[in-house]
Amino acid sequence: MRVFIAGIDGYLGWPLAQFLAARGHQVGGVDGYQRRQWVSEMGSQSATPILGMDNRKRAYQDAFGEKLWFREGDLTNWEFVRDSVSDFQPEAIVHLGECPSAPYSMIDLEHTVLVQQNNIVGTLNILHAMRDITPDAHLVKLGTMGEYGTPNIDIPEGFFEIEYQGRKDVLPFPRQAGSWYHWSKVHDSNNVMFACKMWGLRSTDIMQGVVFGTRVDKMQDDERMITRVDFDQAFGTIINRFCCQAIIGHPITPYGNGGQKRSFIPLKDSMQCLTLVVENPPATTEYRVFNQFQGVFTVKELALKVRQVAAEIGFDVPITNLENPRIESEDHYYNPKHQALLDLGYHPTEDIDKEVLMMIEDLMKYSDRIEAYKDVLIPDVRWNGSRKKVQTI
Amino acid sequence: MRVFIAGIDGYLGWPLAQFLAARGHQVGGVDGYQRRQWVSEMGSQSATPILGMDNRKRAYQDAFGEKLWFREGDLTNWEFVRDSVSDFQPEAIVHLGECPSAPYSMIDLEHTVLVQQNNIVGTLNILHAMRDITPDAHLVKLGTMGEYGTPNIDIPEGFFEIEYQGRKDVLPFPRQAGSWYHWSKVHDSNNVMFACKMWGLRSTDIMQGVVFGTRVDKMQDDERMITRVDFDQAFGTIINRFCCQAIIGHPITPYGNGGQKRSFIPLKDSMQCLTLVVENPPATTEYRVFNQFQGVFTVKELALKVRQVAAEIGFDVPITNLENPRIESEDHYYNPKHQALLDLGYHPTEDIDKEVLMMIEDLMKYSDRIEAYKDVLIPDVRWNGSRKKVQTI
Repeated sequence: MRVFIAGIDGYLGWPLAQFLAARGHQVGGVDGYQRRQWVSEMGSQSATPILGMDNRKRAYQDAFGEKLWFREGDLTNWEFVRDSVSDFQPEAIVHLGECPSAPYSMIDLEHTVLVQQNNIVGTLNILHAMRDITPDAHLVKLGTMGEYGTPNIDIPEGFFEIEYQGRKDVLPFPRQAGSWYHWSKVHDSNNVMFACKMWGLRSTDIMQGVVFGTRVDKMQDDERMITRVDFDQAFGTIINRFCCQAIIGHPITPYGNGGQKRSFIPLKDSMQCLTLVVENPPATTEYRVFNQFQGVFTVKELALKVRQVAAEIGFDVPITNLENPRIESEDHYYNPKHQALLDLGYHPTEDIDKEVLMMIEDLMKYSDRIEAYKDVLIPDVRWNGSRKKVQTI
Repeated sequence: MRVFIAGIDGYLGWPLAQFLAARGHQVGGVDGYQRRQWVSEMGSQSATPILGMDNRKRAYQDAFGEKLWFREGDLTNWEFVRDSVSDFQPEAIVHLGECPSAPYSMIDLEHTVLVQQNNIVGTLNILHAMRDITPDAHLVKLGTMGEYGTPNIDIPEGFFEIEYQGRKDVLPFPRQAGSWYHWSKVHDSNNVMFACKMWGLRSTDIMQGVVFGTRVDKMQDDERMITRVDFDQAFGTIINRFCCQAIIGHPITPYGNGGQKRSFIPLKDSMQCLTLVVENPPATTEYRVFNQFQGVFTVKELALKVRQVAAEIGFDVPITNLENPRIESEDHYYNPKHQALLDLGYHPTEDIDKEVLMMIEDLMKYSDRIEAYKDVLIPDVRWNGSRKKVQTI
């Protein structure tokens, strides 16, 4: 299948290109390298030493025997999106090309507007390119489980049938996001749902849990193929940040009491799921929502898990709870469903400890790169609009 | 009370300034005259001959004995919003400063992006100005009943308590908007709800029905005080368009079979409601949603009503159904609640025929202005992305 990856240079995009190529798909992609700039703006770098795209393309060709179709550009530029889609003629478009950071969107007004505008306009451009050029293509759009927030009822997959005052309907499940970034994803989900209804496009909107890990099945051992792993407050995801902390002897730092429950998924499971979605498109004109995660954990459980696994191989670090820079509940009900991907054949990784161990072993050799930027491990972007390093509680 | 009107030059903004001034409030406002430009872009003009803001300010001063505080500028410009709010120090901000047209947002990608960006960024700027400068002010934000779409269950005011799989919660009511414009209003509602939760701001988010009419109680007889009345496909609202059609002997043109049910409100009721909201702010940190409309009618009922009222004073025109350029259901359940404003003391206009009659009489003297632009009475912006005048069915 001809699969177009928007954001192919990113944490998910680069391993997905490899995963799909290994399965025989023809992969193309675009990227404007914004993620590299944003992480640099946060005063950080990827823990792993990632190559530039020219060298990545060479490595890809060495590994898979064919050239990687790639264009550099910005998804908010309509002509660029139109020409890229027109030239590549995708059967599936995996849209990973959004700014994925809650803290980044909370820095100040400028960043709020940047994140909402970037994500909304990029998605509107892709929807219009699909309408005009490839109306039969399948849009695989990355949303986030964070769109739902933490309601006091079970979370279905996108839609639910309810009875209200004696009548029934199937309606979109209400969203209660927790940052300007998460709301930008809700706005996008709404825009995609509308485009499907109006123009007969088809899309799978993936509410993904927090991704962690370094490894992907079928990724070559070639270090040139490694993906980025961020550990700064804005672009580092929680388990990855905890592992980077442990490796350099830094305390593991949950926010608040750590009772927050969230959905998580190993990077390799994310690749498995995205591939299942690409290879099993919905009917024409269907808009469907999949909740994509392996399991639910509290932040406290994850801190303990990383601490224990790290200790087993000699990294013995304490857990230090920090003031929570976010405004969020630390004690709440959380029960999201995720049946659709299981029905398609998703086999969730069972041994999360082993994933954490592999990640720590992978990152150990880059501990100097983390150590050099360890200042970014303590957050200072606060949800109340101020900016000040949080303290131990 | 010091009331700041964003969009004070518009259809609602200009009469609201007068209505509030007549009640003794200190009124200020901003406008960038985008509405005038957009209507002109649609090849049309206001049926009523409206003055420029300099002359409006003189008329305002003659009527109320004090200067109207006014700044010209664009709400998407942060410095302008910040300085305006800082200089005026409002106790209430009535946010009417959005692009209010579904068809305009459906013209093409450029207009879709313009409408969503304009509305979202303007609202984000206002929220940040409130947080930084007037955190105790009350934001009265204009949403639209169109945010809800037409679900098969009753529509509450913003939130509803539901039981789902044995558990209960109070959640935002799901939105199912029908145009890029209506979705921009949903995006804004979500952003405002989040800002209130996070920063302790307070807001009343008004889901308003389709407004019609020319008259406002307490509006001076001075023709300089008249508000705009649009009749083009994008900025003309349905009853206003039907009246303008009747006046020039043009058939009244419902889209499709006319079975679409919508909520409507006379202009003077809108002023009454907005004033009630301004004068009865919510508690600090509260985000509340009011459904603001007088009643529910089908498009067919309205066409018959305008036809009958117009015929009584000699304008005898047929009803001609047109192809529906929109993608919408023409036969559906629709039962929205609107108790909150009644509880605050809203007295809905009972005699809608009389309102229509007054509007026709007001507009009769400007029939030449409608006649000169009558080409804009038949729509060509279609929801499927094409642009072609619709035909009679």
